[in-house]
Amino acid sequence: MDAILQGYIDKLNRLNFRQMYEGDFFLTWEKSGEELEAVFTLADALRHMRENNLSTKIFDSGLGVSLFRDNSTRTRFSFASACNLLGLEVQDLDEGKSQIAHGETVRETANMISFMADVIGIRDDMYIGKGNAYMRQVVEAVRQGHADGVLEQKPTLVNLQCDIDHPTQCMADMLHIIHTFGGAEHLKGKKIAMTWAYSPSYGKPLSVPQGVIGLMTRFGMDVVLAHPEGYEVMPEVEAVARKNAGASGGSFSKTHSMAEAFQEADIVYPKSWAPFAAMERRTKLYAQGDAEGIKALEKELLAQNARHKDWCCTEELMRTTRDGKALYLHCLPADINGVSCVDGEVEASVFDRYRTPLYKQASFKPYIIAAMIFLAKVKDPAGALKALQERGSARKFC
Amino acid sequence: MDAILQGYIDKLNRLNFRQMYEGDFFLTWEKSGEELEAVFTLADALRHMRENNLSTKIFDSGLGVSLFRDNSTRTRFSFASACNLLGLEVQDLDEGKSQIAHGETVRETANMISFMADVIGIRDDMYIGKGNAYMRQVVEAVRQGHADGVLEQKPTLVNLQCDIDHPTQCMADMLHIIHTFGGAEHLKGKKIAMTWAYSPSYGKPLSVPQGVIGLMTRFGMDVVLAHPEGYEVMPEVEAVARKNAGASGGSFSKTHSMAEAFQEADIVYPKSWAPFAAMERRTKLYAQGDAEGIKALEKELLAQNARHKDWCCTEELMRTTRDGKALYLHCLPADINGVSCVDGEVEASVFDRYRTPLYKQASFKPYIIAAMIFLAKVKDPAGALKALQERGSARKFC
Amino acid sequence: MDAILQGYIDKLNRLNFRQMYEGDFFLTWEKSGEELEAVFTLADALRHMRENNLSTKIFDSGLGVSLFRDNSTRTRFSFASACNLLGLEVQDLDEGKSQIAHGETVRETANMISFMADVIGIRDDMYIGKGNAYMRQVVEAVRQGHADGVLEQKPTLVNLQCDIDHPTQCMADMLHIIHTFGGAEHLKGKKIAMTWAYSPSYGKPLSVPQGVIGLMTRFGMDVVLAHPEGYEVMPEVEAVARKNAGASGGSFSKTHSMAEAFQEADIVYPKSWAPFAAMERRTKLYAQGDAEGIKALEKELLAQNARHKDWCCTEELMRTTRDGKALYLHCLPADINGVSCVDGEVEASVFDRYRTPLYKQASFKPYIIAAMIFLAKVKDPAGALKALQERGSARKFC
Repeated sequence: MDAILQGYIDKLNRLNFRQMYEGDFFLTWEKSGEELEAVFTLADALRHMRENNLSTKIFDSGLGVSLFRDNSTRTRFSFASACNLLGLEVQDLDEGKSQIAHGETVRETANMISFMADVIGIRDDMYIGKGNAYMRQVVEAVRQGHADGVLEQKPTLVNLQCDIDHPTQCMADMLHIIHTFGGAEHLKGKKIAMTWAYSPSYGKPLSVPQGVIGLMTRFGMDVVLAHPEGYEVMPEVEAVARKNAGASGGSFSKTHSMAEAFQEADIVYPKSWAPFAAMERRTKLYAQGDAEGIKALEKELLAQNARHKDWCCTEELMRTTRDGKALYLHCLPADINGVSCVDGEVEASVFDRYRTPLYKQASFKPYIIAAMIFLAKVKDPAGALKALQERGSARKFC
Repeated sequence: MDAILQGYIDKLNRLNFRQMYEGDFFLTWEKSGEELEAVFTLADALRHMRENNLSTKIFDSGLGVSLFRDNSTRTRFSFASACNLLGLEVQDLDEGKSQIAHGETVRETANMISFMADVIGIRDDMYIGKGNAYMRQVVEAVRQGHADGVLEQKPTLVNLQCDIDHPTQCMADMLHIIHTFGGAEHLKGKKIAMTWAYSPSYGKPLSVPQGVIGLMTRFGMDVVLAHPEGYEVMPEVEAVARKNAGASGGSFSKTHSMAEAFQEADIVYPKSWAPFAAMERRTKLYAQGDAEGIKALEKELLAQNARHKDWCCTEELMRTTRDGKALYLHCLPADINGVSCVDGEVEASVFDRYRTPLYKQASFKPYIIAAMIFLAKVKDPAGALKALQERGSARKFC
Repeated sequence: MDAILQGYIDKLNRLNFRQMYEGDFFLTWEKSGEELEAVFTLADALRHMRENNLSTKIFDSGLGVSLFRDNSTRTRFSFASACNLLGLEVQDLDEGKSQIAHGETVRETANMISFMADVIGIRDDMYIGKGNAYMRQVVEAVRQGHADGVLEQKPTLVNLQCDIDHPTQCMADMLHIIHTFGGAEHLKGKKIAMTWAYSPSYGKPLSVPQGVIGLMTRFGMDVVLAHPEGYEVMPEVEAVARKNAGASGGSFSKTHSMAEAFQEADIVYPKSWAPFAAMERRTKLYAQGDAEGIKALEKELLAQNARHKDWCCTEELMRTTRDGKALYLHCLPADINGVSCVDGEVEASVFDRYRTPLYKQASFKPYIIAAMIFLAKVKDPAGALKALQERGSARKFC
């Protein structure tokens, strides 16, 4: 008997997440608290099983389709690892951006690639108003295809980063926080600072800060969003954060001072992003094919960025956090002063001190993705864990 | 007991397809009627098993090598799905066209990639006289490699589209027809119109119309090939169609009128293709590296096309078919008026009405490919189905 | 009872290779003679099992990550085949060269891709002093990641070709020699000529000649390295060869005469490579981004090469070998006179006569790679073979 695994099974049995079966994962704030807890619990269970050489393969065959509309190594490998862990083979869809531009083709392509697909993972974070909308089009297409008898199964969609949220990243971040603080029940009243930081590049997606304030406000924490004037995130997501904070007994506040955000913080997440309004302008310029306009916008944004080089996670700032020991988070890769750039998001000595925790933070992502797939594809996940334990297949033959 | 599966097994036991074992699939007209029926039967059986969550994995390991000398999403995913369904992992061979230009290297490369390959799927449809010939070179190379003890197994070749035939597409089309009409025995005397249609692009392969007249003439149907003057297909394939029609008790005729072809048709397949003679000229121009000549030919062909914009599958034409309800087929993607182009192969309302059947038509392809592989690699396919049923492994753990 | 398999198991039980568990494979000369023998024995055992349709899948899930910093078809397929044979799914890491240039990112990337990786295969042979060093950085990163609890397992590194050695190629070559001569015990006193040969291309890696003299000197053979003046290999590797020869009771000598090397040779390996000193200059020019300098160097090297067109493996030279029947080796693809070039490494009639043995030589590589992985990942390889035999799973369902 594996008491730890049994604990996860018991916990799942206490949670209500039946709505996740045959569902999709678009945005964390569309899921209930118990549904998120189910993802964390299953992620922990799958990791525990793998650490103990117990196979978690629930598929004998089947494809996991990935569509990355932006370069990616980390998320690509996380998705591939998650699929592989469950028994699905990854097939990349390398479609040019133009080829799936209009609705007609999205519907058709989505069906054509899904005859044996159990999951579709999409990363589409470049243009405001587009990425999440595109994912919903894909889901509607395969739902219809399944209803029409075209597809034997409806593949589940996993949002691997869109213009609004980055749920697999933020859920992995959160699971890392939960482990670091010894459980979600210890997070009430903790202060987390999601702050903008300077980077020499421009146009980084908004999905991480938005995902963080949309998710972290659900655990009773005091969530502070800090950025220079002009670096606002989507107002809809701020509204979500405000509402979440009210419901969870925490708070959501904003400041234009990095120092204020760091003051007595338990967790800090300093990271560059582009202003929401600028990203909207960029989206329109791309739609118009206005290359000159894009170049001009880029120049303007870099100049704007350059005025805020002082937004850096320094040792000095870190000393102002709770006992000088706030948990430092980053989705990686970070822009590190004197390492990957002259001036960046974080001082090298800070980054170095948190390197191992940062890698651990990242290590949760494959399990989070696998848990999302598992919950969407298996009717009785707790029973399935039990059955996998009884099956007792080794992951690696020894 | 699964009576439906047993039905497929019984049917296989009545058919003679022993020649397919250790064989390859180049052209449908090289196969006997019973061999084709075995492919259809096995495709249906594999689909039935998957629908009932019964594993069809016959390989514990092994590679499925794909070589696409033309961009492809649909066929690529169909091949990947078929391999995965049987337990093979797909490896793409991304060789530059020039690198495998001469016979010496074909022989060597074919062996070097085949040490653990059970199937090689090739799409090579661009140049007249080249694609099918290349596939035969590959097969000869691996046959010799196997005979010489270099390869532990002879991979089977599946023609994923060549200059002559598109057997996986046309077999999927045919299985869709069989299901729509309630069995191959109901096809005698049915009229099918394979007709050219206008597209704003040029140079589409001849493999579909050729494959269709080469295959559909074997079921006692009245097959009509319609195209504007100058859009002839390969005369050798027309000869095959004529011979097939004679043997099956059907007919094969030609017309330069789309209206005549549609008149009282039970099935219509309106689709653009390039004139055979022009494709031969293009092949020579490419061989000579004559960029100017290619540009001039393209211009000429587009002008020629533009004179036939009236070759479109309209509602008006559809009304002239049997009860106004002919089954509309297309290999997808189609050029749809007002959707993917101004003038194209089909009116949007016609396409929309047949969208679900069209997607179903496409959904047979992975199973057709899987059946072709299965028949080439398993000595006793009927016995194997029986054994798979007895093994009773689930495709998806529930 | 399978007496042949039992023979391999017994042999493994007599050998000491415990150090290979959880280890890596960088250079053959870092391994003991018994360790190399274990690789050969296990490669033979895996091949025997596959030939007899016995599954060798020791992984139920897990990734095999490949990183090719140079184009590759053959090695890529060999690695994919080896991973697949053991149950691992290949994921290619297509990182741009610049992105992983500095140490910081190597450490991070290595961990980010390894959460579920059991093996990392790297080919990085372009720049002197870089490839092998890079592999060691990767290993240090994942070793640390595993120690820190970031990675559940330490992936094993397989050197798929570096600036110093090409162990999977040379081990496959050696296993081919062993089979050809009826056992390693028959190699004492045999003469093997590793000689330079002319190729119209320039800049071919040094890893094959270096790997050959570093490995073949360990079996009591008389190893002769022949090349024109100015085509020296790394002096460190010559020192290794000299030391090996002394220890094994063979010899290592050098000559500037191809004829002398071929004289009474039992085995010949004529192959082009670039001078070590020139490759060092090229590495520096690339580091400086000196495009003009690189162009000038290329021109100089091609002119230097052109003075040695007489270094070709001709029928005439072959007649001077032992009974005119030396075993001809090449890592493929070869530059064949009148086939792939006007003047090249070998006359077409010589190559043709040895084509089948050459393909067999290549066919050992997937098994060598699989054996390296197996020995690094399985604690008791002999016991595992026994258990696999008892499990008795078929590779292909019949």
